[in-house]
Amino acid sequence: MAPKNAFYAQSGGVTAVINASAAGVIETARKNSDRIGTVLAGRNGITGALKEDLIDTAHEDDDTIRALTHTPGGAFGSCRYKLRNIDENRREYERLIEVFRAHDIGYFFYNGGGDSQDTAYKVSQMAERMGYPISCIGVPKTVDNDLPFTDCCPGFGSVAKYIATSTLEASLDVQSMCDSSTKVFILEVMGRHAGWIAAAGGLAGKEPGSAPHVIIFPEHPFEREAFLAKVDQSVKDHGFCVVVASEGAQYDDGRFLSEAGPRDVFGHAQLGGVAPTLANMVKQSLGYKNHWAVADYLQRSARHIASQTDLEQAYAVGEAAVNYALEGRNGIMPVIKRDSSSPYRWHISEAPLNEVANQEKKMPIHYTTDDGFGITTDCREYLEPLIQGEAYPPYENGLPKVARLKNHLVEKRLKEPFTP
Amino acid sequence: MAPKNAFYAQSGGVTAVINASAAGVIETARKNSDRIGTVLAGRNGITGALKEDLIDTAHEDDDTIRALTHTPGGAFGSCRYKLRNIDENRREYERLIEVFRAHDIGYFFYNGGGDSQDTAYKVSQMAERMGYPISCIGVPKTVDNDLPFTDCCPGFGSVAKYIATSTLEASLDVQSMCDSSTKVFILEVMGRHAGWIAAAGGLAGKEPGSAPHVIIFPEHPFEREAFLAKVDQSVKDHGFCVVVASEGAQYDDGRFLSEAGPRDVFGHAQLGGVAPTLANMVKQSLGYKNHWAVADYLQRSARHIASQTDLEQAYAVGEAAVNYALEGRNGIMPVIKRDSSSPYRWHISEAPLNEVANQEKKMPIHYTTDDGFGITTDCREYLEPLIQGEAYPPYENGLPKVARLKNHLVEKRLKEPFTP
Repeated sequence: MAPKNAFYAQSGGVTAVINASAAGVIETARKNSDRIGTVLAGRNGITGALKEDLIDTAHEDDDTIRALTHTPGGAFGSCRYKLRNIDENRREYERLIEVFRAHDIGYFFYNGGGDSQDTAYKVSQMAERMGYPISCIGVPKTVDNDLPFTDCCPGFGSVAKYIATSTLEASLDVQSMCDSSTKVFILEVMGRHAGWIAAAGGLAGKEPGSAPHVIIFPEHPFEREAFLAKVDQSVKDHGFCVVVASEGAQYDDGRFLSEAGPRDVFGHAQLGGVAPTLANMVKQSLGYKNHWAVADYLQRSARHIASQTDLEQAYAVGEAAVNYALEGRNGIMPVIKRDSSSPYRWHISEAPLNEVANQEKKMPIHYTTDDGFGITTDCREYLEPLIQGEAYPPYENGLPKVARLKNHLVEKRLKEPFTP
Repeated sequence: MAPKNAFYAQSGGVTAVINASAAGVIETARKNSDRIGTVLAGRNGITGALKEDLIDTAHEDDDTIRALTHTPGGAFGSCRYKLRNIDENRREYERLIEVFRAHDIGYFFYNGGGDSQDTAYKVSQMAERMGYPISCIGVPKTVDNDLPFTDCCPGFGSVAKYIATSTLEASLDVQSMCDSSTKVFILEVMGRHAGWIAAAGGLAGKEPGSAPHVIIFPEHPFEREAFLAKVDQSVKDHGFCVVVASEGAQYDDGRFLSEAGPRDVFGHAQLGGVAPTLANMVKQSLGYKNHWAVADYLQRSARHIASQTDLEQAYAVGEAAVNYALEGRNGIMPVIKRDSSSPYRWHISEAPLNEVANQEKKMPIHYTTDDGFGITTDCREYLEPLIQGEAYPPYENGLPKVARLKNHLVEKRLKEPFTP
């Protein structure tokens, strides 16, 4: 009997290293070709399975799969698509199983955050009810670092390294010029619900008084007066002030700063932007010349400055997912367990999908300073190991070399099309 | 007789490699300690000379000076301060000569853009009139790449590499998600008067149809309808659209897009932001989900992804400046001459300061495509050599290691204080 094929899909916001997890899955499957057939990847995530748009990774040679380890973005396409509950839309789950059956898929690897792990869990339940044997394993990924059970989420360490490095570099720039030019610099970073990425900006400055001087976390209600006082004090003490602000910064009443911000000439609410909102506030209340940056996708795609630690972990969870599947496991997700911080030692363990799906890892309150504008030593001790090592990609003609996949679709076997 | 001391100052917006020019100056001076005494650096640029705030670089050991080659920002402080014409403010020039005389300074090295070279020229004239022998040599620097006579400006190549790399990486991110999420991504880059940096974004995509699909240059009047049509076509053809927009983008009548942009809730003009302005335009006219990033200081301080070519040129102009001075030259600036593009070969030559000061190098019209939204093969051939090679800094604990200078000030010798 030919070995069962595997299905792999990428879900949600992509990262600098999600393709390294893909490489972990595919390379490990290839090493076990006696027990796993072809890895079929969903084109654009789970919608690829629903539409029967399956990419045949067997068309990619070993070098191309290896090149995934240094290619940012989602090589097979990702999606923002959440499957509803089984009761609400049973048809979608049935369709998945039909597609899996048609392509002889016995392994389901879903690479994503909390919602994706919820989906993977439901697929495993549905398959059981329908009597279809499949091993459903989650592969963790999220720059937001909000999955439970795991020391960190693959993807986060590289964003953290990018933000810490950029904060350090820009701080040196601002410091050089503050005597006669810009005095306040504001860097907006991702993290709508949790301040993990903003906290990483804090790694740039270890000594008292060093930049960044102010961090705005979504966990602490934004107080305009306290913020302005802190900025003013920093300019008076150091000549300049560097602010790292989470896009999720919000007022006490839950309004996001980005929503409370500027309007265009027609009075329409302007598209987000915590940084310009804060910059305006500083300009109008304190009068300091300021500059602002919004890193946006640059931060989560910055493979050129990826953390070696993050890269290794991203690969390891992909590899472990396949190994768990080969052991006949189902309904679990590989996680990272920290053995020690200094030196950083970790190993792969597992967490049950049904429990992963319903929890969000918040930043502990003791990770931020009492005034809510900085990180503590505990936070630093947690974060520092995650940005260790520089995983440089190869370059060609001055630019990072990336994998160019054929992304060849397998022939459809089901008669009915399906529109998710 | 003891050899004359040298004065060195950094001026205007700093770069990822301006400190490499400083290292070039100081290391070359040290090698010629029989003919050049101490290099005194102006604290915060030329204002340091006016105020007699002179940093004694002899207090920094060789390793620290070497570390300048991998430290972004301006290590001695820079300034935005333009000396007026000699007729308008003769006193300032006289003061400079007094300070030079008091500290036995026989060499003046001014590291900056066009305005700074103008200053260096005027100082050389004034010194001559006042009968004070000094060798005034400019050291070119500007991320804007707008100095004449030189193939490129040290500082530009590294910004170009950062923008090209970031555009490539973010494009892969957007492409992954465009089926169900963001379809248009806009990256705002520096360059108020010239589109050199925006053009560098174009290096990310060589093949027809590859990102970036639209580049907005300050050289081409912005036409809203043509822009929207191009974005729409790109989304229809490729599923997504990546836009690289210069902060200097302007309408036909000369209004900057950033000024014509959003206002805050009080009706005040919002601080610049071409990217959010374009994003709003796309959202309201085409309805596409979009994201935007503003690289701001991140781009010009990104030493972590500096171009090796740029680094070498930045060092070479500092080194050459000292060698010219030792040859008794005056009123010149070392420039880079291109011998060939492929492979890139260059050598150092010279240009007269008085001619450097009054010209701005514009981007040639044949460097942009007919529709004004892309770069031509000629442009690519010019730009590509400048981003070659990766000059990685050393890392410590996951972050770039930077020089920490003592910046010890020499004792003042003049009685009168001076406020610029």
